[in-house]
Amino acid sequence: MTPVTYNIEQPTNFNFINLKTGQKEIPFGEYLFQRILDAGTKSIFGVPGDFNLPLLEYLYEPQLIEQGLRWIGNCNELNAAYAADGYSRYSNKIGCLITTYGVGELSAMNGIAGGFAENSKILHIVGVARSVDSRCKNFKKRNLHHLVPNLIDSNFNGPNHKIYYEMIKDKICCSAEYLEDIDQVCNQVDKVIQDIFKYSKPGYIFVPVDFVNMTVPIDNLLINPKINLIDCIKPSFDDEIKIIEITKLIQDQLYKSKNPAIIGDVLIDRYGGQELINRLINETHIWNFSSVNGKSIINESNSTYMGLYNGDEGPTLVKERFLQCDLILNFGVDKNEINQGHYTFKYKQDCQLIELHPNYIRFSKPNDDDNDEEEDEQIFKGINFIHILKSLVESIDVGQLKYQYPVSIKPFKTEELNFEHDPNSQIITQTYIQNKFTDYLNPGDVVVCETGSVQFAMRDLVLPNQLKYISQGFFLSIGMALPAALGVGIAMQDYPRNHLSNNDIPNDYVPRLILLEGDGAAQMTIQELSSMIRFNIPIEIMLWNNNGYTIERAILGPTRSYNDVMKWDWTKLLQVFGDFDDRTDSCTINTPKELAYKMEQLKKGNKTKIIELMEIKLETLDYPKQLKHMVESAKVKNIKSTAI
Amino acid sequence: MTPVTYNIEQPTNFNFINLKTGQKEIPFGEYLFQRILDAGTKSIFGVPGDFNLPLLEYLYEPQLIEQGLRWIGNCNELNAAYAADGYSRYSNKIGCLITTYGVGELSAMNGIAGGFAENSKILHIVGVARSVDSRCKNFKKRNLHHLVPNLIDSNFNGPNHKIYYEMIKDKICCSAEYLEDIDQVCNQVDKVIQDIFKYSKPGYIFVPVDFVNMTVPIDNLLINPKINLIDCIKPSFDDEIKIIEITKLIQDQLYKSKNPAIIGDVLIDRYGGQELINRLINETHIWNFSSVNGKSIINESNSTYMGLYNGDEGPTLVKERFLQCDLILNFGVDKNEINQGHYTFKYKQDCQLIELHPNYIRFSKPNDDDNDEEEDEQIFKGINFIHILKSLVESIDVGQLKYQYPVSIKPFKTEELNFEHDPNSQIITQTYIQNKFTDYLNPGDVVVCETGSVQFAMRDLVLPNQLKYISQGFFLSIGMALPAALGVGIAMQDYPRNHLSNNDIPNDYVPRLILLEGDGAAQMTIQELSSMIRFNIPIEIMLWNNNGYTIERAILGPTRSYNDVMKWDWTKLLQVFGDFDDRTDSCTINTPKELAYKMEQLKKGNKTKIIELMEIKLETLDYPKQLKHMVESAKVKNIKSTAI
Repeated sequence: MTPVTYNIEQPTNFNFINLKTGQKEIPFGEYLFQRILDAGTKSIFGVPGDFNLPLLEYLYEPQLIEQGLRWIGNCNELNAAYAADGYSRYSNKIGCLITTYGVGELSAMNGIAGGFAENSKILHIVGVARSVDSRCKNFKKRNLHHLVPNLIDSNFNGPNHKIYYEMIKDKICCSAEYLEDIDQVCNQVDKVIQDIFKYSKPGYIFVPVDFVNMTVPIDNLLINPKINLIDCIKPSFDDEIKIIEITKLIQDQLYKSKNPAIIGDVLIDRYGGQELINRLINETHIWNFSSVNGKSIINESNSTYMGLYNGDEGPTLVKERFLQCDLILNFGVDKNEINQGHYTFKYKQDCQLIELHPNYIRFSKPNDDDNDEEEDEQIFKGINFIHILKSLVESIDVGQLKYQYPVSIKPFKTEELNFEHDPNSQIITQTYIQNKFTDYLNPGDVVVCETGSVQFAMRDLVLPNQLKYISQGFFLSIGMALPAALGVGIAMQDYPRNHLSNNDIPNDYVPRLILLEGDGAAQMTIQELSSMIRFNIPIEIMLWNNNGYTIERAILGPTRSYNDVMKWDWTKLLQVFGDFDDRTDSCTINTPKELAYKMEQLKKGNKTKIIELMEIKLETLDYPKQLKHMVESAKVKNIKSTAI
Repeated sequence: MTPVTYNIEQPTNFNFINLKTGQKEIPFGEYLFQRILDAGTKSIFGVPGDFNLPLLEYLYEPQLIEQGLRWIGNCNELNAAYAADGYSRYSNKIGCLITTYGVGELSAMNGIAGGFAENSKILHIVGVARSVDSRCKNFKKRNLHHLVPNLIDSNFNGPNHKIYYEMIKDKICCSAEYLEDIDQVCNQVDKVIQDIFKYSKPGYIFVPVDFVNMTVPIDNLLINPKINLIDCIKPSFDDEIKIIEITKLIQDQLYKSKNPAIIGDVLIDRYGGQELINRLINETHIWNFSSVNGKSIINESNSTYMGLYNGDEGPTLVKERFLQCDLILNFGVDKNEINQGHYTFKYKQDCQLIELHPNYIRFSKPNDDDNDEEEDEQIFKGINFIHILKSLVESIDVGQLKYQYPVSIKPFKTEELNFEHDPNSQIITQTYIQNKFTDYLNPGDVVVCETGSVQFAMRDLVLPNQLKYISQGFFLSIGMALPAALGVGIAMQDYPRNHLSNNDIPNDYVPRLILLEGDGAAQMTIQELSSMIRFNIPIEIMLWNNNGYTIERAILGPTRSYNDVMKWDWTKLLQVFGDFDDRTDSCTINTPKELAYKMEQLKKGNKTKIIELMEIKLETLDYPKQLKHMVESAKVKNIKSTAI
């Protein structure tokens, strides 16, 4: 039958004049996308739905496309949220997704919660019902599709249009605005974007579908043409004074210390401090450790890298080094059981600890049992560590540093961990991977690592210079990495070489994007491979196939059927998902020799297709020993007790 | 490396004796599964995660397996929730899923919300951190993986262990319990199950991982060995009196009425009233209409079926019939814009309307503008219509029915809609489908229909006798149907022929499960095809491929790229997802002739493989005219307005 023709005025590059104010106005949909561009975000993820279609029409405005605006349609909304998270982690801009309320927005929720837990900058725009529907007498009692009805007497009581907003506000975001008054919307949009930068957590904007074509003033665009992270965390005058004071206190500690060290934790990355921390290390030659979630912020090839510190869960020799330190500066500190070795960090007696966080700077003595807070503890609230870091780099006097580091201690190298490995084995093992994997990587590459057994192996591998490592190491949602890698790949197209901070990497080297996946995890979000093909993402995917949920097997039920997954024909997936013209290559790898050969070819850049997928076979119950600690911690949970 | 051996006491069929009370006790994990079995649920969906593994160990208890307990591992948690919803819709038992908190449970949320919106009985069991972790001084400030940290000062303030409970409580469930006191857990579990039956909405139980192996008394199991729907909605003595009174009032109306009719709405299905409503119709030969969400509850082959009534959005001839009625009994009424034709129900002048709902019975005159409530409106709260229906069937005196139905009006037949269709066309069109589709169906089959253009076409097709039709027609989350069909198929294994209520369907006929999918929707949840293979679900899948999001194209942006999806090789999917031994068959269908032939073969049962997947090609902008109303309603949203 003849399709319905839809007569609406197509948005044009025609600015409206407000007849009352005489001022120029633009449609709110355009304002929203302009603001996103002003914040540095170019590509937007999501899924169309009836409540966001009019907004999506603005994707085609020429003046926005010129600035790089691009729609990345995902296969589903959870994958869109994961992709937005990946986009942000790579670019340090805001990852943005658009969904429709209820069915779309709830589907994305786990991706947003993970972003919240791991301090990712994500903007979730949710198309909601018309503003009249939530207010107008005739409409507000109507039960609308996608909107859950009232729990009580839904045939009489109208739905709560803000129910989805109430579910997430102050729980999994730092900022949320449900737009209701067209006169406020510009400021509300700007506020959410600024909050996301300031707090480095997700934010939500709920946009009634009828607001999108209404016009709004352009004042904010003129006053603040760009929204930058740095402006959003600008210190007040009083804070500037504190910054100077704190910098001095830290320097005093550094100049006194015999064995100081830095921990490079994850929040450095979120506030754009990577260059600064590496500069500080290079200039001061201070001992430095990475953390589980901060891995790759510090260039691990530096001459005083001491390993990844993770309390009792890390290698003994790293622990020993850490215990030598009388001063620890933990930059960008984010405390959780994963990042703190299940709360087993141990400090030297009388060690001075300085925690540098986006919202506080704290001086304390961790081993002070007297809990003498007045003497030994000092806390400065509301100061973002990034300013301290900058100030330190600018003003540190290396001549006053009087280290007495033990001469025998060399930088941490992977080989020191002594992975026992049988060179004649025909089976690929975790120890083989740990031995060989860093050979595969080039400086400047980008690695996205799935939650799974391999993620635990990666901790103690020393990464090449300027390699960016991305993994959801705290929230641990399996399946996140695959769509996140799409997001990273898109961000690498929008901001090529964004992760490189100096001239170490030759201009003609194209950083590779590498995804380390597990079979159980991949099944969760597999369809997003389709989007990788669709948007021409160059990527090397290593799928470690050990037949099921390996972390779970390690914890409990190693041979139980609940830890099994269906066997898939992994090497045919890309063809089925849209590679009809031979743009991709897939293979199965069974032996160490095959793996070594393939890794060597790819390292050299001998890659003919845009996507390489390698299914790498491992034994079912083979997992790295770093996983053991996680398992031990879980074991405590299973002591039977009888009610007596 | 050697896998870690995990020394815990394996659960055994050994009952514990509580030394204080002298009473038998069993592990709580066993109690929980026993209760689920007692409620009639056999198969359980979900995904393993560290906080639910000890619970999953109880899946292997012989005494539970004997009763039919079975684990259906899904590819992800959203799909698990959709599958549980499908399981419930088919069996009328509780669909149950188990996830781990945060990463698993949030992923499932959209599936639960859809179940809430559409009154499905779903039990979501969420494994959470150890009870000590949320209480004990040393642990409660710890930020645990999967648990979102505190919004404020997360390095100091502990996380809110109940945050996920607070997000959903009273919003997308009728009942939720976060277990904290081992002495209360049995009653809490029973309460949630009973509430799910009573309110026909989802319920949650948050189970600390350390509770699972603790022992609990078996008293509840002895006192209430089964938990049945009927017991959960048992009327009180006072209510019994009201039931008699209401029945009489209704009968009086029926005996007076010249042109009465019944609407068979969705809540009849949820409270197990399908047999009763059809008996009532068969005995009284009363005019009857289905509703959008209640389709197939009424056997549409009955001799006084008048079509699917949907206000202005339905066919004219159905509207005309409805307007003749002076009495409408709307059984199982669930009001929303989809089910009420975007609130365009129109009644004859002086028509008496009786709404029969699980929580009220209401007598009113819809056209009474005076709003004379005292005279014309009467409402009885707290009475479940199912009792009224039963009472009516038992006590109606057909001799007192004095219909004066117009003799010329015959039962509604699909042909009356007059789909213009070119018999020589080489293209498969929506009108062709609407013309031919019911030929493909046999009495007693089961059809699961995705949200999409085809769903709109299905409304006015008269279904064969005892065909069960399942679709998420109100919440409209695309992608739901595919995993839901898995759930339906599992339920058909647990409760064969459950949907058949008399001997019309020969014993040797095996009801077919048919899934109608759309390409855009299928991409959302496609991996669950893998589980269909894994669990040997016999199913015929018609994938209507019209190149993208057709409903969205109808509303806006018919040729916009945001409405496109990647082209997939649909006919190779099953092989990739695990069919390595030729158990399935896939084909592409391009012309009406090919479609007719295939439908004929399958109708006759000429099916060699367990799964048949047919990719059926349609034109991109071809959609049924019933969709037009949805589009028109959305169109209002797009009137531009300038701020003046």
